[in-house]
Amino acid sequence: MNRTQLFEQIQRKKSFLCVGLDTDTRKIPAFLKAESDPVFSFNKGIIDATAPYAVAFKPNTAFYEINGSAGWLSLEKTISYIKEQYPEIFVIADAKRGDIGNTSAAYASAFFDHLQSDAVTVAPYMGKDSVSPFLGFKDKWVVLLALTSNSGADDFQQMEINGNSLFEHVIDKASGWASPDEMMFVVGATQTKFLTKIRQMIPDYFLLVPGIGAQGGDMEAVAKYGMNHQCGLLVNSSRGIIYASSKTDFAEAAARVAEKIQGAMARFIK
Amino acid sequence: MNRTQLFEQIQRKKSFLCVGLDTDTRKIPAFLKAESDPVFSFNKGIIDATAPYAVAFKPNTAFYEINGSAGWLSLEKTISYIKEQYPEIFVIADAKRGDIGNTSAAYASAFFDHLQSDAVTVAPYMGKDSVSPFLGFKDKWVVLLALTSNSGADDFQQMEINGNSLFEHVIDKASGWASPDEMMFVVGATQTKFLTKIRQMIPDYFLLVPGIGAQGGDMEAVAKYGMNHQCGLLVNSSRGIIYASSKTDFAEAAARVAEKIQGAMARFIK
Repeated sequence: MNRTQLFEQIQRKKSFLCVGLDTDTRKIPAFLKAESDPVFSFNKGIIDATAPYAVAFKPNTAFYEINGSAGWLSLEKTISYIKEQYPEIFVIADAKRGDIGNTSAAYASAFFDHLQSDAVTVAPYMGKDSVSPFLGFKDKWVVLLALTSNSGADDFQQMEINGNSLFEHVIDKASGWASPDEMMFVVGATQTKFLTKIRQMIPDYFLLVPGIGAQGGDMEAVAKYGMNHQCGLLVNSSRGIIYASSKTDFAEAAARVAEKIQGAMARFIK
Repeated sequence: MNRTQLFEQIQRKKSFLCVGLDTDTRKIPAFLKAESDPVFSFNKGIIDATAPYAVAFKPNTAFYEINGSAGWLSLEKTISYIKEQYPEIFVIADAKRGDIGNTSAAYASAFFDHLQSDAVTVAPYMGKDSVSPFLGFKDKWVVLLALTSNSGADDFQQMEINGNSLFEHVIDKASGWASPDEMMFVVGATQTKFLTKIRQMIPDYFLLVPGIGAQGGDMEAVAKYGMNHQCGLLVNSSRGIIYASSKTDFAEAAARVAEKIQGAMARFIK
């Protein structure tokens, strides 16, 4: 999916909501455990219920890998289902990969060719030749970690180097590696005080913003300080939506939370 | 596996060789493609042939994920095979994971509980609360990226902060999070000029050293500057061993290369 298509979907749905499919078998409703693939059954329910309000889905690979190859099968079925039923929705594999060149190239093929995701999250620590193998795939995206939502972001990302934080150096260098048509940056919703400066540095890039809901981030502040002329935001909520109810009404409950967030987002979309 | 057991194996085999199982379906001998699981068949051949000379095996998840859930099944079978046939050998899942706390906890369970690997490589960018969920598993290890073997290591890892490089800050902080009984650090074999300083900082920690062979690192310099009183090194070679021949003698050819490296290593083991 290209940037124009993504922005058109945002305008049509009046939403920049990304629903995080962090589907933990220990947390899904008990009645689903009788299904042959409880994770996929849960995801189908969440996807169908929240698709009207979401422009992106973001499965995090950790919650699939905890079930090994069976979990990867659930992940494959989940992305295939989204691509078949909702081809307009952007799919981000939240994998935080990154390795030496030939290895990153294998990851890129895994996530773009095999899984058919539109985007993959990548960690910047190993530098340019670990990121660039993910670039150059038509209408595919790297979402690079810049300033994350967790408390550990202070350990290294906020270290000061020649007057700027490490995360600012990451943004500065990496924005020279790829255009806003194939790279986005992760900025946690708990980091809104840095959004103004980040927007000065990279006015045109999309930001993937996790951390509203369970992690305490503020969607309205994100919209106020993070938007650009093409929205430029994908704001993610995972646990707050997908675990809104632990009963048979889990999908309807997820839809109600997603609709509420979308309603709040609509006020920011022209 | 604990540190004493690992050191005993190193002394017994007179080796600190780690064989990287970066098994790329595009590179394995053509005759294996008739097998039901060519990756696993190849790995069995390599494992059986090199086990006498190796103290560790390191499958890199990228080369399994490129085949999706079928690839993860090959990975599961590979680690099970090593654990059944060669329980004394240390298994490192080279996955370079790292995420917010509850997500890193899911990865830790995937790699330690489900896959039964002894160790997993972790990226430090997201800080302490992204690393600590991998700690506290009995006889399991975090192998944290410090200074990698690729050219991109210069982009961020070598940035200077208050007189020290970022990778030195990573080593300094992270060695405060975990003892040498449950943490190792990755230092590329192309980075030998930094080994003396690294050993001053962390005399007791094991280092996982990739990059000899195809990447051009020098095993003898690594041993000279990187060893400690308990060896303290696992030196990895992947492509140079596993692709030594592309014919039916691939396993024997791998054994010959592994034996040659082990022979060079033996001179450094008391």
